[in-house]
Amino acid sequence: MVKKIVINKNLRGKDEQIADEIRTALALHHVLAVNLISSPGSGKTTLLEKVLPILAKELKLAVIEADAATRNDADRLEAAGLRVEMISTNITGCHISTAAACKAFKTLNQMPGLVSLDLVVIENVGNLLCPAGVDLGEDAKIAMVSVAEGEDKPLKYPLLFQNAQLALINKIDAAEALGVDIELLKKNITSVNPNIKIISLSARTGENTESFISWIREKVEAKKKSGQSLQ
Amino acid sequence: MVKKIVINKNLRGKDEQIADEIRTALALHHVLAVNLISSPGSGKTTLLEKVLPILAKELKLAVIEADAATRNDADRLEAAGLRVEMISTNITGCHISTAAACKAFKTLNQMPGLVSLDLVVIENVGNLLCPAGVDLGEDAKIAMVSVAEGEDKPLKYPLLFQNAQLALINKIDAAEALGVDIELLKKNITSVNPNIKIISLSARTGENTESFISWIREKVEAKKKSGQSLQ
Repeated sequence: MVKKIVINKNLRGKDEQIADEIRTALALHHVLAVNLISSPGSGKTTLLEKVLPILAKELKLAVIEADAATRNDADRLEAAGLRVEMISTNITGCHISTAAACKAFKTLNQMPGLVSLDLVVIENVGNLLCPAGVDLGEDAKIAMVSVAEGEDKPLKYPLLFQNAQLALINKIDAAEALGVDIELLKKNITSVNPNIKIISLSARTGENTESFISWIREKVEAKKKSGQSLQ
Repeated sequence: MVKKIVINKNLRGKDEQIADEIRTALALHHVLAVNLISSPGSGKTTLLEKVLPILAKELKLAVIEADAATRNDADRLEAAGLRVEMISTNITGCHISTAAACKAFKTLNQMPGLVSLDLVVIENVGNLLCPAGVDLGEDAKIAMVSVAEGEDKPLKYPLLFQNAQLALINKIDAAEALGVDIELLKKNITSVNPNIKIISLSARTGENTESFISWIREKVEAKKKSGQSLQ
């Protein structure tokens, strides 16, 4: 017997309802969705180019890719052999809206459908602020910061780090040249969110990207087993 | 003969009217206002710490400083001996609103008033997207990008570079370690705005910061002579 749950729609906003729809569809099909958020140029696309082709050998995955003005990142990921669904925000668009994410998930749910996927990676618009509070129905937000941005960013833009399950510190190969203290950056991340997992890596050199791959792999396994959102 | 132009105020939004008020006050007192915009961690505060104490020896200046969650940057600039008016946007605030800028200018206009100033530097919230289209009544927007953000940012976030008079390329001392092609970055900036002035520098080492100081100095002189907005 399927139990019918009646939600008082007036108690929740339209975006929250759409996010719930996405969450329900992802839970139904046991698909993990992660939402990668950072400033422009922190290295999101470079990281995905590096790790997703490796994960694609063992998992069925797709990328939802958003950009304000070009298809550059989507083209790069398609060139890496990945299935990409593109969201074009307009030139002033500063984040993926819940409605746009829903449309992208619906497109992914066309034949062969979400049921055929294990993982959807959302690469958000380059922005440390605006996407941080937007619920896309994802299982986890991933906050990325490059060492080039300085040690104080988690303190100055705390919302993303508070709302994320994982923080990625990128470009560790350039820390010395930039005079950046990675331990202080980690301490600042932990001070705004003591429960966050932190992985330091270099998307360019590949250093420690295997830790990020392992994190994704574990979350996909957990989602397959539970079918519940991890949040 | 001066031709009288009648503007139907109903045709202009409230923010545009406020921006016009700021512009008029700045023109009346011959004060140059520049609005520095970049991603988080591009080096805005470090650059201002370096160049404003030098300019303060010859110009009367103040800084309007905005941040979402801390007073860190304002404290750094006050420690450098500068007069700072702080705007606290809330934790999700992604740009300085025209109304907030107006309030800050009004505070600066209290005794001894704007008439006593030559230059106001606005350091916006770290965000390459949202502040780009917001008119604060300033004479010029300055777009800053660090080499660490990669060569493609002007193409992906063109609005800021289209609306700016000056582009600053920062962290040129780290370009080699990061494997970044500065000439390609310059070409991409020029491709979205052929009229923009570009200055490459390193706020950290001080390399070529004198070119930025000269640019400011010339704009202040021009504003003193004309009393007209440079835009």
